[in-house]
Parts: sequence; C-alpha cells; structure tokens
Amino acid sequence: MIRQPAFAVEPWTVREATLDLDRIAQSESVFALSNGHIGLRGNLDEGEPFGLPGTYLNGYYEGRPLPYAEAGFGYPESGQSVVNATNGKLIRLLVEDEPFDVRYGELRHHERVLDLREGTLSREVEWVSPVGQAVKVRSVRLVSLAQRAIAAIQYEVEPIGGRARVVLQSELVANEPIPHSEGDPRATAALEAPLVSELAAARDLRSVLVHVTRRSGLRMAAGFEHLIEGPDDIATAVQAEEDLARLTLTTEIAPGQPLRLTKFIAYGWSSVRSTPAVRDQVSGALAEAKHTGWDSLRQLQKRFLDGFWKRADVEIEGDPELQQALRFGMFHVLQAGARVEGRAIPAKGLTGSGYDGHAFWDTETFVLPMLTYSLPEAARDALRWRHSTLDQARRRAAQLGLEGAAFPWRTIDGDECSGYWPAGTAAFHVTGDVADSCSRYLEATEDEDFARQCGTELLVETARLWRSLGHHDKAGRFRIDGVTGPDEYSAIADNNVYTNLIAQRNLRDAAAATESDPELAGGFGVDSEEAAGWRDAAEAMIVPYDEDLGVHAQSESYTEHAVWDFDATASDHHPLFLHYPYFDLYRKQVVKQADLVLALHLRGDAFTAEEKARDFAYYEALTVRDSSLSACTQAVIAAEVGQLDLAFAYMTEAALMDLDDLEQNSRDGVHMASLAGAWIAAVAGFGGMRDHGGHLTFTPRLPENLTRLRFRLAFRHRLIEVEVGASAATYTLLDGDPLEVAHHGESLTLKTDRATSKPIPHLDDPGPRPQQPPGRAPRITRGPG
Amino acid sequence: MIRQPAFAVEPWTVREATLDLDRIAQSESVFALSNGHIGLRGNLDEGEPFGLPGTYLNGYYEGRPLPYAEAGFGYPESGQSVVNATNGKLIRLLVEDEPFDVRYGELRHHERVLDLREGTLSREVEWVSPVGQAVKVRSVRLVSLAQRAIAAIQYEVEPIGGRARVVLQSELVANEPIPHSEGDPRATAALEAPLVSELAAARDLRSVLVHVTRRSGLRMAAGFEHLIEGPDDIATAVQAEEDLARLTLTTEIAPGQPLRLTKFIAYGWSSVRSTPAVRDQVSGALAEAKHTGWDSLRQLQKRFLDGFWKRADVEIEGDPELQQALRFGMFHVLQAGARVEGRAIPAKGLTGSGYDGHAFWDTETFVLPMLTYSLPEAARDALRWRHSTLDQARRRAAQLGLEGAAFPWRTIDGDECSGYWPAGTAAFHVTGDVADSCSRYLEATEDEDFARQCGTELLVETARLWRSLGHHDKAGRFRIDGVTGPDEYSAIADNNVYTNLIAQRNLRDAAAATESDPELAGGFGVDSEEAAGWRDAAEAMIVPYDEDLGVHAQSESYTEHAVWDFDATASDHHPLFLHYPYFDLYRKQVVKQADLVLALHLRGDAFTAEEKARDFAYYEALTVRDSSLSACTQAVIAAEVGQLDLAFAYMTEAALMDLDDLEQNSRDGVHMASLAGAWIAAVAGFGGMRDHGGHLTFTPRLPENLTRLRFRLAFRHRLIEVEVGASAATYTLLDGDPLEVAHHGESLTLKTDRATSKPIPHLDDPGPRPQQPPGRAPRITRGPG
Repeated sequence: MIRQPAFAVEPWTVREATLDLDRIAQSESVFALSNGHIGLRGNLDEGEPFGLPGTYLNGYYEGRPLPYAEAGFGYPESGQSVVNATNGKLIRLLVEDEPFDVRYGELRHHERVLDLREGTLSREVEWVSPVGQAVKVRSVRLVSLAQRAIAAIQYEVEPIGGRARVVLQSELVANEPIPHSEGDPRATAALEAPLVSELAAARDLRSVLVHVTRRSGLRMAAGFEHLIEGPDDIATAVQAEEDLARLTLTTEIAPGQPLRLTKFIAYGWSSVRSTPAVRDQVSGALAEAKHTGWDSLRQLQKRFLDGFWKRADVEIEGDPELQQALRFGMFHVLQAGARVEGRAIPAKGLTGSGYDGHAFWDTETFVLPMLTYSLPEAARDALRWRHSTLDQARRRAAQLGLEGAAFPWRTIDGDECSGYWPAGTAAFHVTGDVADSCSRYLEATEDEDFARQCGTELLVETARLWRSLGHHDKAGRFRIDGVTGPDEYSAIADNNVYTNLIAQRNLRDAAAATESDPELAGGFGVDSEEAAGWRDAAEAMIVPYDEDLGVHAQSESYTEHAVWDFDATASDHHPLFLHYPYFDLYRKQVVKQADLVLALHLRGDAFTAEEKARDFAYYEALTVRDSSLSACTQAVIAAEVGQLDLAFAYMTEAALMDLDDLEQNSRDGVHMASLAGAWIAAVAGFGGMRDHGGHLTFTPRLPENLTRLRFRLAFRHRLIEVEVGASAATYTLLDGDPLEVAHHGESLTLKTDRATSKPIPHLDDPGPRPQQPPGRAPRITRGPG
Repeated sequence: MIRQPAFAVEPWTVREATLDLDRIAQSESVFALSNGHIGLRGNLDEGEPFGLPGTYLNGYYEGRPLPYAEAGFGYPESGQSVVNATNGKLIRLLVEDEPFDVRYGELRHHERVLDLREGTLSREVEWVSPVGQAVKVRSVRLVSLAQRAIAAIQYEVEPIGGRARVVLQSELVANEPIPHSEGDPRATAALEAPLVSELAAARDLRSVLVHVTRRSGLRMAAGFEHLIEGPDDIATAVQAEEDLARLTLTTEIAPGQPLRLTKFIAYGWSSVRSTPAVRDQVSGALAEAKHTGWDSLRQLQKRFLDGFWKRADVEIEGDPELQQALRFGMFHVLQAGARVEGRAIPAKGLTGSGYDGHAFWDTETFVLPMLTYSLPEAARDALRWRHSTLDQARRRAAQLGLEGAAFPWRTIDGDECSGYWPAGTAAFHVTGDVADSCSRYLEATEDEDFARQCGTELLVETARLWRSLGHHDKAGRFRIDGVTGPDEYSAIADNNVYTNLIAQRNLRDAAAATESDPELAGGFGVDSEEAAGWRDAAEAMIVPYDEDLGVHAQSESYTEHAVWDFDATASDHHPLFLHYPYFDLYRKQVVKQADLVLALHLRGDAFTAEEKARDFAYYEALTVRDSSLSACTQAVIAAEVGQLDLAFAYMTEAALMDLDDLEQNSRDGVHMASLAGAWIAAVAGFGGMRDHGGHLTFTPRLPENLTRLRFRLAFRHRLIEVEVGASAATYTLLDGDPLEVAHHGESLTLKTDRATSKPIPHLDDPGPRPQQPPGRAPRITRGPG
C-alpha cells in the first residue's frame, strides 16, 4: 500500500502544508488539543468549513433512551452521549465586509503545525478575498496543561499590499448544528440542541454563558476574556444572549500593523453546583488566566511537556516516520490523561465524538500501561475514577445476581450504556482489566495511599465478582461460563483463556492484598475464609488446551469450530461485522482482535515459550484485526517469539493508525488505545519489558529496520533508561535506589553510579513467518526509512 | 392450588354464568370465534366494557420499525403486528334513550355459551336500565367454517314488563382505540389508527368500508348486510363515513314481540387487489351469505363440526373437566386451522394480539401433529403457507451466508421479525421443525400431490440449510455450532441434541425423498452427490452425552455448567426471564421448556428406554416450565417412562392453560400450542402413539385418574379408533385398507371387519417420581374428578 502522507515527517511536530477538505475531519482529530478535561478539535478558527465541530468537557454528556426491539431484564434503559459543548474557539474574520472562508477567494498559503514540545497548534494562512484583498492570518491555540479550566488562542491578522477594514468576531456558541449520524432517530433528536440556556452575561471584553443539558441535567459554564493589540481606534462591542456571546472588533489596519487578539476561554461543569457557582468558577479561572498572561501560559505549557518528555520519551533510530508517530501518539495519550482528575479516559480521548465519547476497557489495558510508567499520577487519577464508580458497579453486579462489582462495558459516568449484552455485559473481562491495571499501578509505584484509599477495595470487589461468576465443576475445576472475551467475533463462551487468566491474577492479587493488610481487609468484610476461596478458585482455574493441535483454545471447544472461509471473503468485506451476521462470526474460528494472544502478553507468566510460539502462529492465521486494539499486542508477541519484522510491521500499523487514517474513521477521533499501543509495542515488544508480579524484566531485540531504541520508565520512585542497539542493551538508573531487573533472564542490579551494558543473545531461528488471513497482513510493510 | 372455575364443567360447552369484569379479557379469548381467516374476540355485542377489542384477518398486519440500541448486520429492520381490523360485531342498543351497558343499571341475568358442536357463541342477558326498564337480550354469533369470508350474528331484544322504545345501531368501526401496551413508543404509534380509509358506501341495509394500512399497504374491505324482524313501523337509516358504517333501527317493542336483527359480516383483504376489487369481493360474499340465510349458515356450521368430531374426537372418562378442556382445545385448534388456506397459524390463532399475531415453530411442532391426524387438509394448507414463503427463507439464508432456506423465528408474512437474534435467528431448529412436520404429514397422508408441489422442495431446501450450517470436525463428526435449541434459557450453544437430531431426520428424509423421485429432485438441482452428503452428515451427527452423569447433555458442555440456584429463587420470580438477565440464564443449567425432553419424544427412535428414563429425571429437576410449550411434552415422556400420575398432571396443565388462565396471560389470546398439546398428551402420552418413519405404534397405558381413553386418527386414507381401558386396548379400523400397527411392541394388522383387543402389559416399577425445581411441579394435581 502506497500512501500519500498528509503530514510532513519531522521528529517533534506534525505539519500540514496544504488544506485538503476531504481530509479535514481527520485533521481535526489529529490536531485536537486537550488536557483531559477540555478537548478542542482542530477546527479552523473561523469555524467553517468543518468535518465535525467539537468542543468537549470530560464527563459532560446528555442522556438518551436506549431502544430495544425486544427488551430484556437488566438491559440499560438510558444511554449517554458526549455533548458538543459551547464552542469557545470561534474567531470569525471579515475583510472588507467579506467573511474569511477558505472555500472562497484564494488560499495562497496554508500551514498548521502541532508542536509536541510546545503543546500548541499554530496556523499560518495567506488568503486573498474574492475582491482581491490579501491578508495574513496567524493563530496559536493551546489547551492549558497547567491551568485545567483554560484554553487560549492568540489570533493575528495583517493586510498585505494596503490598508484594509477588518472585523473580528470572537464568540461562544452553544448548540452548534452538527452533522447527523445515522441510527436511531430518537437518539439523534436527544442530541439536537441539548443545551438549555440558564444565564448569559457580558461586560467589557468578557462574557459567560451557563447551560444545562435537557435530560441529564448537567450544568456547564463557558466564558471568554480578551486582550487586544492593534490600532488605537478599535471599536469593540460585546453581547450575550441564550446561545451566543460575541465580542466584535472593528478597525482598519495596515501592512506591518497587525491586529492581535488574545482570547482566554474557560470551562467548568458540575452535576450539583448551582448556576451562580459554575458562573463564578469560570469567571475566576478567566481572571487567573488573564493574570497569568499568554506568554506565561505558553511557558507553563512547555514546562509541563519538557517534564513529560524528559521522563517518558521513546527514541528510535531507523524510521523517522515511526519516531514521529510514536511521539504523536504519546502526546495524545498525555493530553487524554494529563488532567483527567476524577473522570474517565474515553476511547477517543476528547478528540471526537466516536463511540459516543464512552470509555471502555481500552483505557485500563492499553492506555494506562503507558501512563503508569510515564506519568503515574495520571494513571492513578484514571483508576480513582473507576474507584469512584464502585457503587454503580456494585449495583450492577447485584442486578446481575453477582457479588462484588461489575464494571460497565461502555460508559461516561459509570453506568452501563451497552445496548447489546453479548458484547457488553457478558464481556466481564473489563472488570478483570481494571484489577490488572490497578495491580500494575500498585506494583510500579508502591503508592500506599492509593492502595489504602482505592486499590485494595478495587481488588476485593473485582475478586468477589469472579468468585460469584464462576463455579467448581464435579472434578473441582473452576469454570467461568458464558462470557465474552476480548475477541468480539466470539461471544458467550465457556472458559475464555484470557478471561480466566485475568480473573486468576485478580483473585490472587486480592488475596495477597488483603493478606498483607488484614485490618484494611476487615474493613471490606474480607476474612481469611474469603481470601482462601479466592486462592482456591485461582488455583483450580481451567485453561482450555487442545491436545490434538497442541495449542490453547481461545475458549472451550473453540478449536472444534469451523474455520472462517477466508478465501471466500471479499477484500471489501472488512470489517466483517458490517458484512456478516454475528451468529456466523460467533460460531466460527475467526478472531477480530488479539484475545488468546493478549493473554500471552499480559499473562505471559502462564505460558511456556514453546506454547507462545505455537499459539501465536495458530491465532495469527485466524486474526483479521478488524479492531484497533490488536496490532500492538500482536507486535509484542511477534517480537517475543522472534518474528521481529512482523512485530515491526504491527508496531508501525498501531503507530500510524491516525496519521495515516488506516481505519478510515479517524474523523471520529483518534484511537487512543492504538496510539498508546505503539508505546507498548516499542517498550514491551522490542524492549521486551514485562512486569509480572511487579518484577521488571527485559528481553530487548531490535528488528532490522531499527538501529536504536531508547526509552525511560518511571518505576517505584526511580527513573530507568533502557537503550537497545543491534547487539547490546544498556540499562541506566537515572534516579532512585538500586533496583534489580533482568536482561534476557540474567539478573542485574541497577545503580545510579553506572550504566550496565549487556549483549543481546543470538536469536535462534524462530521458524517461518506466521501467516495472516489473505489480505490481512499488517497494512504497512516498508523497508528502512 | 384451589381454583375458582370461571366456566361450568360440561362435555360439549363452555358456559359462563356470571360476568366478571376482572376476567373479561380472558373470556374474550376463550370465547373467540374464528375460521382461520376471520377471528372475532368474544367482545360483548355492544362493544363495552372490554378487555381488548379484537377483530383479526389472518395475515393482515401493519409494519413498524424495529429499533436497536446497537445495530448489527442482518437484523430485521421492520417488524409486523397484527392489526385490529374493522370491527363488524358491534351492535349497540339503547333502551328508552339509555345505552345498554352492563356497568350501569342492573344485570339480572348473564350467560354466555360457547358450543363446541354448534360452533356458536350465544348470549342471554336480562338487564334493567338505570331508570328501571328491563329487557332481555339474546344473541348468537358465528364465524362461518363453510363460508370463509363470513361471520354472522343474530341479535334479539325484548322488553320485560311493558313496552319500550329501543334503538339498535349495527356498526362497522375502523381504527377503534385499543389499550396501549408498554414498549417502544414508535411501535405503539405505528399501530395507532393504522387504517386509512379508501371507500365508504352504504345503501338500504348494507354497507362496505375499504381501508389500507398506512405502512404495509395491505387493503381490506369489511361489509355488513342485515335482515330485520319485528314491528312493522321500524325506522331504518344507514350511513357510511371514513371509519364508520352504521345501520340504525328505531322502534317500540312489547313483551313477547322481540326485535330481531340478523347481521351478516364479510371480510376480505389483499396485498395486490384494487379498491373496487376488494369491495366487490366483500359485497359478493354478503350476497351469498344472505342467500344462504342464517338458519342454513348454522346448519352448515354444525355439519362441518359434526364431521370434525366424528373423525377427531378424543373421549376420556374419569375427569369431566379434562374432557371439556380437551375438546375446548381441539375446537380452538380447529378454528385456527380450518380455513387458513395459504396463511400462517399464529401462536394465538386469531384470538388475540399476543406475540404481535406472529407464527412461530409452535405451529409445526405442536399444532400440526393434531391437525395432521384430525384434519389433514388444514395441516396441508399450513404447510403450503410455509412453502409459499420459501423465496423469503432462501433470501434470509443467503443473507446469513447459508445455503437452502432459513425459516423465520417469528413472522406474519414470512419475513423474519425477530429483533433478538440469540433467541431468533440462532434458533435454526424452526427450519427443522418445518421439515419434521412436512415429513409427518407426508407419511400420514401419502399426499403425492403435496410431495410434488411442496413437500420435496421443503425437505431439500431445509436439508441444504443444515448441510451448510454444520461442518465435519477433525475426527469426521458433524457439528452444528452456535445455535439455540427450544429451551430459551440457553442460547448460542454447540451441538444442541434436539437441533442435531431434528437436522439428522431432515437430512435423511430429504435424501430419501430425492432418491425416490430423481426426476423431481433433479428439478431442484439435487444430484446423488448432494444427497450422499446429506446422508453422511446425518450419520456423523454428534449427540453429546455425559458419561459421568449417564445422561445426554442438552448441548455440548451443558452438564458442566452450574445448576441454577433454585432454592434462592423467589416463587414470585417466575417467569425467570422477567427477573434475571439472559446472560445468567444462558450460562446455567435451568430449562425454560422441554428441549432434550422434546428430542426424547420427536426423536424417540434415537434413544433407549433407559436413556429416556434417566434423561427425563435429570431434566425434570432443571425444568421450570416458564413456557406453555412444555407441559404436553413432559406429559408424553412422563407417560412413556411410566410416571403416569405426573403425566396426568402435565396433561391437565396443558389442557387447562386458558380455561384456568394458568399463565395469567390468556387475555392476549389462547395458547394454541398448549391446547393442541393436550391432544398430544392424550394420544402420544396415554395412547403412546408414535409415528417414527410413518409407522404407527402404540404403548397405551392410563393413569389412575382415568378409566377410559378413546381417540380417532386419520392415517393414510384410513380412520382408526383406539380405545384404552385400564387393562386392555382395542384397535378398530373404521375405514380403509388393512393397516399394520404395533401395540406395546407387538405387531397387529387392523382390518375393518373386526376390532382387535390386546391386554396392556404390567408396568414395571418406574422408580421414584422425578422431582421438579421447588414450586415448579405441575400446577394442577387433583384426585379423580
């Protein structure tokens, strides 16, 4: 596949040099800015043309009825959809009475740059109006990582060739019309103009609008404040009405005498606070931002990012495009998680309305590993959010007739929003994924406060779920029947290996956590009998294995099922679920996304090297990768079994998911898990990092296309750097007490006083490259860059 | 459970002696009249009070969108709901200006009688109006079994104590308001006033209204014509407008001088014929009915029923109530199937709008066995309907990626209407049930015309489905994975025994049918290779068996699943699916309705007697009977394994389903399959009749509560009578050529010249009575009547 790059290849920036209206929606996602609380899609300053206008506040949603052709007990009645909140990034420009709109006149020059170290989106345009007046427009936009409630824009316009009259309209617009998606008309109706005005106030150069969502009753305030630089005679007018606040500047400017507007935008929302309270919260944030000032906001932004990259950067040599993509992905993951503080990290972050803005298991299984080792406080906050929904998860478990907590398949506020239970409620692994992520965080940080406040309770309540979900059969083996694993092309199966192994770890970790702090455990009603029950169930856990084939069965009887007829599947029939019925997908051997192979990674301690190689080869031939939650895991295991070129191809696919719009749906937002997965592919794949039981081990080995890989990990109050070359790896403890790790099975003690270099052992012939279904090999397979 | 009988116990009538408004909806179903084409609920003549007004035309439906919270490929987009058609049974009465309404004034006497030999619903009322005028009202209603388009009412009013002014309004009313059911508001909206007027004409004493359904575009005509007897000075006026036609009679009558109105009502509908065409069709039918006259319509009705009862009656001694219930049930099954002619037999017949008026597998598996041996031409017509939907079933199979035909789980016109695929699309056994029913009909009738026109094609296309649905595993065994059997508390399982065995018979029968007529087979593209493929698959069919427990597993791994916690299930938590989520029901051992046990009946040739006894006992302990499609099958197998009292209890439950409103939902229509199931319980249970491979065998044995059972069977142009006493059974060939049957394994040749009596062998101790889950023993367990 030869692709036409949309963006220039540079190490620290993503640059768009032409404006392609067919790609505008993708660009809006790629150029989205966020701090985890506020998300602004990369819409043009003037609002139009757009692919999808988008301004999001984490957790701010509207409810809508979930309809069923045939209802059933326990089906969620109400769904949640992220709301396009009041748009504060709008700055409209009129030049000699003509609106600046790139669809008219002539666009002489266009450039946008997302700067991964500055944390800004900047733009430079030269435009000639239909009547021939040329102007230069420059803008820089940021969503502050330092001041959570604040976004800011500096906007500058300057005429070319002669004086020009200009008007700037800086706005807040609520209830923007958005393009209709297909689907249930009642859902669409619920999201049409979801915001009901409660307050509109304006004075001087500032304004605040307060709205409340019609059904969910969530109250939000948006406000702006401005600084103006330019000619002395600028006329200003400010107005505010229900769904609009507008500051209008009118003046005439000359070449070399730009008009510059600095716009501070603040957001806040609450499910409980009053209209005056949210108004004041936003006004206060604006006052603080103005006091901080534009230059300082930019400095703070850079400082935050410098700190992040210093701790977390992953450098690769040999493929500049992959280097760029890796950093781009890490930047988006950082943006999604940085200031999430008590809310979820949705599958698309705050970059688009895809998946209704819901959070899934993606967060715990793909996003949090990167954050745990790069920005642990963000991982902690995301887990705190899960903990804050424990009551909802307990109620859900009770409704389902289970003990403990059942976390939702998809949600914004913690309540289950899945309207299709075989791939929602039945996918209980999400609860194990939360526990797994919690254990990883605890092992990596030794965060005792979190353990006491959240971690142990999470482990206890999730273990209780498994204990009540499974049962011992006549032979005393522990079974978990009728569940759906990660592979969404199978459902309602018995003893899914991934689910059983993630449950096994959960049960063990809960037992260990309560054993280590009996007093805390007692507070949760855990006695030694209960903990023993968890350990017994874990020990007796069934892991289906097909003796004839010598591979693990993804779930019981799985390998008895017919293999999907890949040869008869047209190449344009992917993703399969849009072209074939679930009943047929479920009953055949065809894998949407890594399932058994994900177990080989996350529970690699439960498999031998030989099993991994055989299992990987077997499931490669069945995996169509109709999900973005797959390539990174396949990269990790391909690397582990020595299929390094294949691993490289998978990593590249994961990393380029959005820059190359590989699934043709980046318009709805970037694929946060795939972007985080590129980090996983680098660190756990070519770095060979594993963290089973909190013990860091490495089996680094580079593919031919890379000459060097360097990454850093935050681990137990330490900072570790690993540098991998073709023949040796070097481990450096940059900060903290000595730490024992392993390199290809050899134990090393890292100390800050010196780096440790170790040769990389010879790779035994890993055998032939595993084959994928026809046409489903990794989509990008290039030589060295 | 002590029940308060709603109806007097009489051998040939169902009599209601008081009007209980709390039971009025149940009575409307019990007293519904139908000929399989027209259905009139037993609403009071004057229309109110009602439980649910109902006038149905078989196959006449309105479409409605099927909503999904999360859509999927192949989900039906449109549903179908039976429409409450133009109500022609309305005759309103005013007495001295006061409307006759039993909720006002005084109801001195009320009686309604459904006469199973006359085929009429008659009514006698004495009512005193609020101002004190007493009247006697008598009406007799029939839906003609002889003239398919016709219903008729004779209505008589007579004053008591003195002269009275009366007004009669005989009406046709379209778009009657009906009580709202809960559920999707869009579906409700689609069914509110579904009829759009196209024509309204009235002249003399007759009128015709033509309407078309808004979405489905089906055109119907309803008409009335009248005869009047009474005083000479009756003033009449007729009018017709969009949704109303009305004949008004005004007169004064005296005691002994009743006013009598005879109303002929005609219906017709078509998806293709024009407004004038359906108008004329109905006018013509009215002319014919008037020409036939009321008395002759009644005679024809009786003659039809005499013929039916002569061929089909089942007599029992020892329980008069059960005798009544049996005949009541057979009468409703007759009504549902008599003149169905190219349409489906819905689960509720035409007695209510339950299940949206859809037909399910109920028809083929429970209703058609009775009709096959009692009124074979009705069975043939029902199967012809299935055949007429073959193109739709072929399209559905193709959409699902399968060969042959996939019949819908629920439908009116042949298109799939199920909005929940795990219990719809996945329940492929419905297709095998069609084939099974077809084979039974062919074996029982030797109807060569049907075989050529429909039967062989049905067997071929259904066999093709199975061949493409299943596959051979590595060991060469034929598997059918990911399907749902009859038990709706399990779904998407591998190798469901019932499904596999019904498929096995289907494959064999198709092979045999095409082998016996290669030319016909060639017309369907069947060659000897294809037929051999069917036989091979049938031979290699997997039938899961649990060696440890010594019982068949309902499906693979079923017996490994946890047993439902019956002790923790509150008695008011039935049916379970209204109180527990599907995910939990599906993954545990709990059976909604006979599944494996149904295989023991319909594929009894595939099990040994010992296996049947063990399997029955095992599944009895798991079966909660939350479906009305269960008790009759449990009765049959209970009788076969010698548990005669248990069989009697199950038969009683099946028979009394609607007369006693056992499931508290007879208001929505009678349970046709349960009523037909009472016949099955009598004939296949205590008569021990089996028809495997077209060979009739009997193992008759009575329970203590019965002293005699006599039934007749139409079989291959013969009429056979079987009379069972406590110690002997007598077989009589009433008509036709000699026939070989078997009595308890002993072969007998029946001839018309003499009856054959045989002693009933001693019953070996069948062991302890199998136990049901707590509280789920058959609901009616009484001593001898």
